[in-house]
Amino acid sequence: MGSCVFCDIVAGTAPAARVYEDDDVVAFLDARPVANGHVLVVPREHVSRLENLDPELGASMFRAGQRLARALTRSSLPTDGTNLVLNDGRAAFQSVFHAHLHLLPRRKGDRIRLGVGLVRRRAHDPDATAAAIRAGLDRLASEEKNP
Amino acid sequence: MGSCVFCDIVAGTAPAARVYEDDDVVAFLDARPVANGHVLVVPREHVSRLENLDPELGASMFRAGQRLARALTRSSLPTDGTNLVLNDGRAAFQSVFHAHLHLLPRRKGDRIRLGVGLVRRRAHDPDATAAAIRAGLDRLASEEKNP
Repeated sequence: MGSCVFCDIVAGTAPAARVYEDDDVVAFLDARPVANGHVLVVPREHVSRLENLDPELGASMFRAGQRLARALTRSSLPTDGTNLVLNDGRAAFQSVFHAHLHLLPRRKGDRIRLGVGLVRRRAHDPDATAAAIRAGLDRLASEEKNP
Repeated sequence: MGSCVFCDIVAGTAPAARVYEDDDVVAFLDARPVANGHVLVVPREHVSRLENLDPELGASMFRAGQRLARALTRSSLPTDGTNLVLNDGRAAFQSVFHAHLHLLPRRKGDRIRLGVGLVRRRAHDPDATAAAIRAGLDRLASEEKNP
Protein backbone atom coordinates (compact mmCIF):
# COMPACT_ATOMS: atom_id res chain seq x y z
CA MET A 1 0.00 0.00 0.00
CA GLY A 2 1.30 3.42 -0.95
CA SER A 3 0.58 6.72 0.68
CA CYS A 4 -2.38 7.56 -1.54
CA VAL A 5 -5.48 5.38 -1.33
CA PHE A 6 -6.72 6.50 -4.75
CA CYS A 7 -3.40 5.62 -6.37
CA ASP A 8 -3.72 2.19 -4.72
CA ILE A 9 -7.22 1.80 -6.14
CA VAL A 10 -6.03 2.86 -9.61
CA ALA A 11 -3.19 0.33 -9.36
CA GLY A 12 -5.57 -2.37 -8.13
CA THR A 13 -3.73 -2.86 -4.84
CA ALA A 14 -6.62 -1.47 -2.77
CA PRO A 15 -10.16 -2.81 -3.20
CA ALA A 16 -12.91 -0.74 -4.81
CA ALA A 17 -16.08 -1.40 -6.79
CA ARG A 18 -14.96 -0.06 -10.16
CA VAL A 19 -17.64 1.12 -12.55
CA TYR A 20 -15.70 2.75 -15.39
CA GLU A 21 -12.19 3.28 -16.64
CA ASP A 22 -10.39 4.64 -19.67
CA ASP A 23 -6.84 5.74 -20.48
CA ASP A 24 -7.12 8.85 -18.30
CA VAL A 25 -9.45 8.08 -15.40
CA VAL A 26 -10.85 5.37 -13.13
CA ALA A 27 -14.30 5.59 -11.54
CA PHE A 28 -15.38 3.57 -8.51
CA LEU A 29 -17.95 3.67 -5.72
CA ASP A 30 -17.22 5.93 -2.78
CA ALA A 31 -16.56 3.58 0.14
CA ARG A 32 -18.72 5.76 2.38
CA PRO A 33 -21.48 6.94 0.07
CA VAL A 34 -23.72 9.92 0.72
CA ALA A 35 -26.27 8.21 -1.54
CA ASN A 36 -26.48 4.82 -3.21
CA GLY A 37 -24.47 5.00 -6.43
CA HIS A 38 -22.12 7.72 -5.14
CA VAL A 39 -19.16 7.47 -7.53
CA LEU A 40 -15.72 9.06 -7.56
CA VAL A 41 -13.88 9.78 -10.81
CA VAL A 42 -10.11 10.09 -10.37
CA PRO A 43 -7.26 10.64 -12.80
CA ARG A 44 -4.87 7.68 -13.07
CA GLU A 45 -2.04 10.11 -12.53
CA HIS A 46 -1.54 11.34 -8.97
CA VAL A 47 -2.48 15.01 -8.93
CA SER A 48 -3.33 16.65 -5.63
CA ARG A 49 -5.11 19.83 -6.65
CA LEU A 50 -6.77 21.65 -9.54
CA GLU A 51 -3.65 23.82 -9.65
CA ASN A 52 -1.58 20.83 -10.81
CA LEU A 53 -4.17 19.07 -12.94
CA ASP A 54 -3.56 18.98 -16.69
CA PRO A 55 -6.65 20.70 -18.14
CA GLU A 56 -7.10 17.84 -20.62
CA LEU A 57 -7.12 15.38 -17.74
CA GLY A 58 -9.71 17.55 -15.98
CA ALA A 59 -11.78 17.50 -19.16
CA SER A 60 -11.54 13.69 -19.18
CA MET A 61 -12.75 13.56 -15.57
CA PHE A 62 -15.75 15.68 -16.44
CA ARG A 63 -16.54 13.68 -19.60
CA ALA A 64 -16.52 10.50 -17.51
CA GLY A 65 -18.70 12.15 -14.85
CA GLN A 66 -21.24 13.28 -17.43
CA ARG A 67 -21.26 9.84 -19.04
CA LEU A 68 -21.83 8.19 -15.68
CA ALA A 69 -24.67 10.61 -14.92
CA ARG A 70 -26.33 9.61 -18.19
CA ALA A 71 -25.69 5.94 -17.41
CA LEU A 72 -27.37 6.29 -14.01
CA THR A 73 -30.64 7.32 -15.64
CA ARG A 74 -30.41 4.12 -17.70
CA SER A 75 -29.62 1.94 -14.69
CA SER A 76 -31.84 0.18 -12.20
CA LEU A 77 -30.85 2.75 -9.55
CA PRO A 78 -33.65 5.25 -9.12
CA THR A 79 -32.21 8.64 -10.11
CA ASP A 80 -34.01 11.95 -10.58
CA GLY A 81 -30.90 14.09 -10.84
CA THR A 82 -27.18 14.23 -10.24
CA ASN A 83 -24.69 16.50 -8.55
CA LEU A 84 -21.18 16.60 -9.96
CA VAL A 85 -18.92 18.07 -7.29
CA LEU A 86 -15.20 18.67 -7.16
CA ASN A 87 -13.86 19.90 -3.84
CA ASP A 88 -10.47 21.56 -4.24
CA GLY A 89 -8.57 22.34 -1.05
CA ARG A 90 -9.22 21.59 2.59
CA ALA A 91 -11.35 24.73 2.97
CA ALA A 92 -13.59 23.26 0.26
CA PHE A 93 -13.86 19.88 2.07
CA GLN A 94 -11.23 18.05 0.00
CA SER A 95 -10.16 15.17 2.22
CA VAL A 96 -8.16 12.94 -0.12
CA PHE A 97 -5.42 14.88 -1.88
CA HIS A 98 -5.72 13.07 -5.17
CA ALA A 99 -8.11 15.17 -7.24
CA HIS A 100 -11.54 13.55 -7.60
CA LEU A 101 -14.96 14.34 -8.98
CA HIS A 102 -17.99 13.22 -6.95
CA LEU A 103 -21.03 11.93 -8.81
CA LEU A 104 -23.98 12.01 -6.47
CA PRO A 105 -27.26 10.44 -7.65
CA ARG A 106 -30.28 12.28 -6.29
CA ARG A 107 -33.90 11.38 -5.70
CA LYS A 108 -36.90 13.63 -5.25
CA GLY A 109 -37.42 14.09 -1.54
CA ASP A 110 -34.02 12.85 -0.41
CA ARG A 111 -32.67 14.90 2.46
CA ILE A 112 -29.29 15.79 1.04
CA ARG A 113 -28.61 19.52 1.32
CA LEU A 114 -25.71 20.84 -0.66
CA GLY A 115 -25.77 24.46 0.40
CA VAL A 116 -25.67 25.97 -3.06
CA GLY A 117 -28.97 27.76 -3.53
CA LEU A 118 -29.78 27.81 0.16
CA VAL A 119 -27.89 30.77 1.53
CA ARG A 120 -27.87 33.19 -1.36
CA ARG A 121 -27.20 36.83 -0.68
CA ARG A 122 -26.96 39.94 -2.80
CA ALA A 123 -23.60 40.69 -4.39
CA HIS A 124 -22.20 43.78 -2.73
CA ASP A 125 -19.86 44.93 -5.48
CA PRO A 126 -20.06 42.68 -8.52
CA ASP A 127 -18.01 44.98 -10.75
CA ALA A 128 -15.05 44.99 -8.35
CA THR A 129 -15.34 41.24 -7.83
CA ALA A 130 -15.46 40.56 -11.56
CA ALA A 131 -12.47 42.85 -12.12
CA ALA A 132 -10.49 40.97 -9.45
CA ILE A 133 -11.22 37.63 -11.12
CA ARG A 134 -10.29 38.96 -14.56
CA ALA A 135 -7.01 40.24 -13.09
CA GLY A 136 -6.35 36.74 -11.74
CA LEU A 137 -6.94 35.31 -15.23
CA ASP A 138 -4.52 37.86 -16.68
CA ARG A 139 -1.93 36.88 -14.09
CA LEU A 140 -2.38 33.21 -14.98
CA ALA A 141 -2.03 33.95 -18.71
CA SER A 142 1.09 35.97 -18.02
CA GLU A 143 2.62 33.11 -15.97
CA GLU A 144 1.92 30.75 -18.84
CA LYS A 145 3.67 33.06 -21.31
CA ASN A 146 6.67 33.53 -19.00
CA PRO A 147 7.01 30.30 -17.05
CA MET B 1 -35.78 39.16 -23.28
CA GLY B 2 -36.15 35.49 -24.14
CA SER B 3 -37.37 32.69 -21.95
CA CYS B 4 -33.91 31.72 -20.66
CA VAL B 5 -32.02 34.21 -18.52
CA PHE B 6 -28.66 32.55 -19.24
CA CYS B 7 -29.27 32.75 -23.00
CA ASP B 8 -30.04 36.45 -22.49
CA ILE B 9 -26.78 36.91 -20.58
CA VAL B 10 -24.84 35.05 -23.29
CA ALA B 11 -26.48 37.28 -25.93
CA GLY B 12 -25.74 40.39 -23.88
CA THR B 13 -29.42 41.34 -23.57
CA ALA B 14 -29.49 40.71 -19.81
CA PRO B 15 -26.90 42.29 -17.52
CA ALA B 16 -24.18 40.24 -15.83
CA ALA B 17 -20.65 40.80 -14.55
CA ARG B 18 -18.77 38.71 -17.10
CA VAL B 19 -15.41 37.35 -16.07
CA TYR B 20 -14.45 34.98 -18.90
CA GLU B 21 -15.60 33.85 -22.31
CA ASP B 22 -14.39 31.74 -25.19
CA ASP B 23 -15.98 30.14 -28.25
CA ASP B 24 -17.87 27.59 -26.16
CA VAL B 25 -18.72 29.16 -22.80
CA VAL B 26 -19.41 32.38 -20.95
CA ALA B 27 -18.65 32.85 -17.24
CA PHE B 28 -20.22 35.54 -15.08
CA LEU B 29 -20.91 36.27 -11.42
CA ASP B 30 -23.93 34.60 -9.88
CA ALA B 31 -26.42 37.41 -9.22
CA ARG B 32 -27.14 35.96 -5.78
CA PRO B 33 -23.77 34.63 -4.66
CA VAL B 34 -23.25 32.10 -1.90
CA ALA B 35 -19.76 33.56 -1.49
CA ASN B 36 -17.96 36.55 -2.96
CA GLY B 37 -16.61 35.51 -6.35
CA HIS B 38 -19.31 32.88 -6.94
CA VAL B 39 -19.15 32.34 -10.72
CA LEU B 40 -21.34 30.42 -13.15
CA VAL B 41 -19.90 28.89 -16.32
CA VAL B 42 -22.53 28.29 -19.01
CA PRO B 43 -22.35 26.96 -22.56
CA ARG B 44 -23.26 29.55 -25.20
CA GLU B 45 -25.63 27.01 -26.67
CA HIS B 46 -28.87 26.48 -24.78
CA VAL B 47 -28.73 23.00 -23.27
CA SER B 48 -31.03 22.15 -20.40
CA ARG B 49 -29.48 19.03 -18.92
CA LEU B 50 -26.37 16.84 -18.87
CA GLU B 51 -28.34 14.39 -21.00
CA ASN B 52 -28.36 16.84 -23.91
CA LEU B 53 -24.93 18.39 -23.41
CA ASP B 54 -22.31 17.66 -26.06
CA PRO B 55 -19.48 16.02 -24.06
CA GLU B 56 -16.96 18.35 -25.68
CA LEU B 57 -18.99 21.33 -24.53
CA GLY B 58 -19.07 19.85 -21.04
CA ALA B 59 -15.30 19.45 -21.20
CA SER B 60 -15.03 23.14 -22.17
CA MET B 61 -17.17 24.12 -19.18
CA PHE B 62 -14.91 22.19 -16.86
CA ARG B 63 -11.73 23.58 -18.43
CA ALA B 64 -13.07 27.10 -17.89
CA GLY B 65 -14.06 26.26 -14.32
CA GLN B 66 -10.63 24.90 -13.53
CA ARG B 67 -8.96 27.91 -15.11
CA LEU B 68 -11.14 30.27 -13.08
CA ALA B 69 -10.31 28.34 -9.89
CA ARG B 70 -6.61 28.83 -10.63
CA ALA B 71 -7.24 32.49 -11.43
CA LEU B 72 -8.97 33.01 -8.09
CA THR B 73 -5.83 32.02 -6.21
CA ARG B 74 -4.01 34.70 -8.23
CA SER B 75 -6.65 37.35 -7.56
CA SER B 76 -7.15 39.80 -4.72
CA LEU B 77 -10.10 37.73 -3.50
CA PRO B 78 -9.03 35.66 -0.51
CA THR B 79 -9.45 32.02 -1.55
CA ASP B 80 -8.34 28.89 0.29
CA GLY B 81 -10.19 26.43 -1.90
CA THR B 82 -12.91 26.04 -4.49
CA ASN B 83 -15.97 23.90 -5.07
CA LEU B 84 -16.94 23.15 -8.65
CA VAL B 85 -20.57 22.04 -8.64
CA LEU B 86 -22.94 21.10 -11.41
CA ASN B 87 -26.53 20.43 -10.33
CA ASP B 88 -28.39 18.37 -12.93
CA GLY B 89 -32.14 18.08 -12.49
CA ARG B 90 -34.59 19.61 -10.04
CA ALA B 91 -33.93 16.84 -7.49
CA ALA B 92 -30.29 17.96 -7.55
CA PHE B 93 -31.22 21.64 -7.00
CA GLN B 94 -30.96 22.74 -10.62
CA SER B 95 -33.07 25.89 -10.78
CA VAL B 96 -32.17 27.38 -14.17
CA PHE B 97 -32.57 24.84 -16.96
CA HIS B 98 -29.60 25.96 -18.95
CA ALA B 99 -26.73 23.75 -17.80
CA HIS B 100 -24.25 25.63 -15.61
CA LEU B 101 -21.19 24.92 -13.51
CA HIS B 102 -20.89 26.74 -10.16
CA LEU B 103 -17.47 27.92 -9.07
CA LEU B 104 -17.59 28.63 -5.36
CA PRO B 105 -14.55 30.25 -3.72
CA ARG B 106 -14.02 29.06 -0.19
CA ARG B 107 -12.27 30.41 2.88
CA LYS B 108 -11.07 28.62 5.96
CA GLY B 109 -13.76 28.99 8.58
CA ASP B 110 -16.56 30.06 6.25
CA ARG B 111 -19.84 28.49 7.23
CA ILE B 112 -20.82 27.00 3.91
CA ARG B 113 -21.82 23.37 4.25
CA LEU B 114 -22.12 21.38 1.07
CA GLY B 115 -23.31 18.09 2.44
CA VAL B 116 -20.77 15.90 0.71
CA GLY B 117 -18.66 14.43 3.42
CA LEU B 118 -21.13 15.19 6.18
CA VAL B 119 -23.63 12.37 6.09
CA ARG B 120 -21.55 9.42 4.93
CA ARG B 121 -22.83 5.96 5.51
CA ARG B 122 -21.60 2.47 4.76
CA ALA B 123 -22.43 1.09 1.33
CA HIS B 124 -24.88 -1.76 1.80
CA ASP B 125 -24.21 -3.67 -1.42
CA PRO B 126 -21.43 -2.08 -3.44
CA ASP B 127 -21.11 -4.98 -5.89
CA ALA B 128 -24.79 -4.80 -6.88
CA THR B 129 -24.65 -1.02 -7.11
CA ALA B 130 -21.52 -1.11 -9.28
CA ALA B 131 -23.10 -3.76 -11.52
CA ALA B 132 -26.21 -1.59 -11.95
CA ILE B 133 -24.11 1.40 -13.00
CA ARG B 134 -22.07 -0.68 -15.43
CA ALA B 135 -25.32 -1.98 -16.94
CA GLY B 136 -26.42 1.64 -17.43
CA LEU B 137 -23.15 2.39 -19.22
CA ASP B 138 -23.68 -0.64 -21.46
CA ARG B 139 -27.20 0.58 -22.25
CA LEU B 140 -25.83 4.02 -23.13
CA ALA B 141 -23.14 2.53 -25.39
CA SER B 142 -25.75 0.36 -27.07
CA GLU B 143 -28.01 3.40 -27.71
CA GLU B 144 -25.06 5.20 -29.24
CA LYS B 145 -24.37 2.26 -31.57
CA ASN B 146 -28.04 1.95 -32.58
CA PRO B 147 -29.47 5.45 -32.41
